[in-house]
Amino acid sequence: MPLSSRHLLGLQGVPKEDIQLILDTAITFREVLDRPIKKVPTLQGKTIVNLFYESSTRTRISFELAEKRLSADTINFTASASSVNKGESLKDTIKNIEAMKVDMVVVRHAAAGTPNFLTQICDSNIINAGDGIHEHPTQALLDMYSIREKLGRIEGLKICIIGDVAHSRVALSNIYGLKTMGAKVSVCGPSTMIPKNIEDLGVDVIYNLDEAIQENDVINVLRIQLERKAREYFPSIREYIKYFGITKERLDKAGKEVLILHPGPINRGVELSSEVADGMNQIILRQVTNGVAVRMAVLYLLGTLI
Amino acid sequence: MPLSSRHLLGLQGVPKEDIQLILDTAITFREVLDRPIKKVPTLQGKTIVNLFYESSTRTRISFELAEKRLSADTINFTASASSVNKGESLKDTIKNIEAMKVDMVVVRHAAAGTPNFLTQICDSNIINAGDGIHEHPTQALLDMYSIREKLGRIEGLKICIIGDVAHSRVALSNIYGLKTMGAKVSVCGPSTMIPKNIEDLGVDVIYNLDEAIQENDVINVLRIQLERKAREYFPSIREYIKYFGITKERLDKAGKEVLILHPGPINRGVELSSEVADGMNQIILRQVTNGVAVRMAVLYLLGTLI
Amino acid sequence: MPLSSRHLLGLQGVPKEDIQLILDTAITFREVLDRPIKKVPTLQGKTIVNLFYESSTRTRISFELAEKRLSADTINFTASASSVNKGESLKDTIKNIEAMKVDMVVVRHAAAGTPNFLTQICDSNIINAGDGIHEHPTQALLDMYSIREKLGRIEGLKICIIGDVAHSRVALSNIYGLKTMGAKVSVCGPSTMIPKNIEDLGVDVIYNLDEAIQENDVINVLRIQLERKAREYFPSIREYIKYFGITKERLDKAGKEVLILHPGPINRGVELSSEVADGMNQIILRQVTNGVAVRMAVLYLLGTLI
Repeated sequence: MPLSSRHLLGLQGVPKEDIQLILDTAITFREVLDRPIKKVPTLQGKTIVNLFYESSTRTRISFELAEKRLSADTINFTASASSVNKGESLKDTIKNIEAMKVDMVVVRHAAAGTPNFLTQICDSNIINAGDGIHEHPTQALLDMYSIREKLGRIEGLKICIIGDVAHSRVALSNIYGLKTMGAKVSVCGPSTMIPKNIEDLGVDVIYNLDEAIQENDVINVLRIQLERKAREYFPSIREYIKYFGITKERLDKAGKEVLILHPGPINRGVELSSEVADGMNQIILRQVTNGVAVRMAVLYLLGTLI
Repeated sequence: MPLSSRHLLGLQGVPKEDIQLILDTAITFREVLDRPIKKVPTLQGKTIVNLFYESSTRTRISFELAEKRLSADTINFTASASSVNKGESLKDTIKNIEAMKVDMVVVRHAAAGTPNFLTQICDSNIINAGDGIHEHPTQALLDMYSIREKLGRIEGLKICIIGDVAHSRVALSNIYGLKTMGAKVSVCGPSTMIPKNIEDLGVDVIYNLDEAIQENDVINVLRIQLERKAREYFPSIREYIKYFGITKERLDKAGKEVLILHPGPINRGVELSSEVADGMNQIILRQVTNGVAVRMAVLYLLGTLI
Repeated sequence: MPLSSRHLLGLQGVPKEDIQLILDTAITFREVLDRPIKKVPTLQGKTIVNLFYESSTRTRISFELAEKRLSADTINFTASASSVNKGESLKDTIKNIEAMKVDMVVVRHAAAGTPNFLTQICDSNIINAGDGIHEHPTQALLDMYSIREKLGRIEGLKICIIGDVAHSRVALSNIYGLKTMGAKVSVCGPSTMIPKNIEDLGVDVIYNLDEAIQENDVINVLRIQLERKAREYFPSIREYIKYFGITKERLDKAGKEVLILHPGPINRGVELSSEVADGMNQIILRQVTNGVAVRMAVLYLLGTLI
């Protein structure tokens, strides 16, 4: 049974069967990553363009490795080294790249909706690698894979997303995906960082971090984007750490196990103390490994729908 | 029968048989691009260096895709990330790169004559990907391929190059190639953008755009390089558009079909109106697709002469 | 017999047998470079990350070509295009990259000791491509390979390193390697550029260039790093050239053959006159070719120890 869509634009509206298929397929590729020869010929002769209009380390490299390990040919297109300087529109750029007979486009862009726009003007499979504060579906898929790998299931789990939920594409994709898979999802953060009407998505809001830790099986801790506008939404970093920074003391106080995820890169000493970031309950580096396998699964499944 | 030269520096003086051979060979590679597996093992184990001293999207990616689809190993060398910062000369840079046992060098440089210079100091096959305002031979070859694909021939066609002919390497390569292939070539643009003595190349000059459209089978519309010095050569963009911008109204007025080419990226609303750029008579994206096939043909044919 | 270490961090303390094995293995790969198909399947399915925190042309391209010719998958990570902008530590960056199931990391960094640090936090094989003013072991290995190729041996040769020895990782790696291989090593340069207590390494100091040429079989001439702080250590470039620039006149005056090496890029007219840089006694471009073979040997030998 194939996926129900040729593109991966977000997890909003993606049926449970599709998510299940991606997570199950990723198990096979996760095993490939543990072999001495981490490569399969699946996408040989296919061309994948990584179109990154925002800088990125881990997501770009994770996709590039996934592509190479599927034996695809990859082209990296970054905004700075390109015709963007010559004032060409995104539409003309993508139409031109696609005319070179590209099969799939992985796109990251600061403008929400860019991947959807590309599907209207392209024949290629489009994969959203993060669009503004909208969605980042492969991140949510790898989060779900990692939770399931660790706890055996997603359905019925209580999972809280902590931090600047209002400006996080990771949060939104997680909410859509986790709800579809039957988790009980809540969010926690300063009131300025919780979107109005978030309850309409079937999500509970918790304003107290200790309560969030106490009542959940899993916490997915967002990166506070110090380099962006996030700082406008709370008085000071010290204030944020005091109320929402996860420390060992706080975890100990809860007197129970909670699984900790983080999409990286971590601000050590801000949203996570260094002790917690390297501690027993977190699976942050497993998430990174699983991310390559999940992206291989997505590329493989969409590739068969070309 | 092989090509008569080990290098592709320009189309000036290139015999008709060579151009014919490249265009005919490109037909085969054009078919490869329509296959599910767009890859042949032709240049396996060969190393090609893309030496780009000017930024470029489509030409660089087009060459890189052509190389990868021929199974060559590619190295991208761009000026900014390099020893150029350490003050090394072009000669020392290329001698060093070549000493690493490179087979072919694709070079773009702001200085006219750079590719010719490289042939004097290198053993590799040199391919000009644009040198200053001198030549851009693969662009002209893909233009010719696209005209022939659409109209069945080049010989006897009336073809006009429109725009800043004086500062265009695309124009010069087109003039050399099209004349060799038996087309009747003219140029059209403001007098400040038409080189003196251009008639010496066997080219007619037309100063009126309506006349150019009326009297030709094909118009190849150059990009006005707004970011460069082109603006010095006419009073204002509005003035340029008024006299030399191609609009649907103008084409309708001519009351005849004319095939429209453009090397991209387009300044929409300047040299072409958006309606024309996306309209029936243009083959702009076909040119882009054909460009990969033509470059595969050039690399393949030169590669057999190593 | 395999290498005695899983990493190549420097040549200090590396046993003679290891250096011998690398140099002997490189002979095979040097032959591969002369074949029409310069590629072997040795590292197929392995992933190598080139982690360059300092800009580089020849070393980065040399490693990348070595990796591709061994059929490895390569990922280029340069500081500017990365999460470094987001304030992530080197440790978190490398742990994340490694979590993507990387086999080997080639690292260049301005901070001496970075490669050693990586071995403490990574499972990958680490190869030092230059760390501050500490070591640059593959450069010294290719220098030794080139000397042996030309003169048939290293043991017993008199070899002088000339220039800014105090701030050169090339010098230090050469001293360790050449001493281990039984050469008689000296250094020559202005007193401000000779490290105090260099004699403790078993190295003689010569302050007069003519004497250095006269008494040695080989001179390895360092690049004066005009763009760095080197200029602080002598009154003027003219002064440096007068006392330490190698010219044909100087070589002729010696009335004997001396083999000249230089790691590149050359400052023509500074440490070497152009005549000498292109002259009979130098093997500068051979060093570049041999560098690819030596790096293939290092990657191959370490790869079998994964």
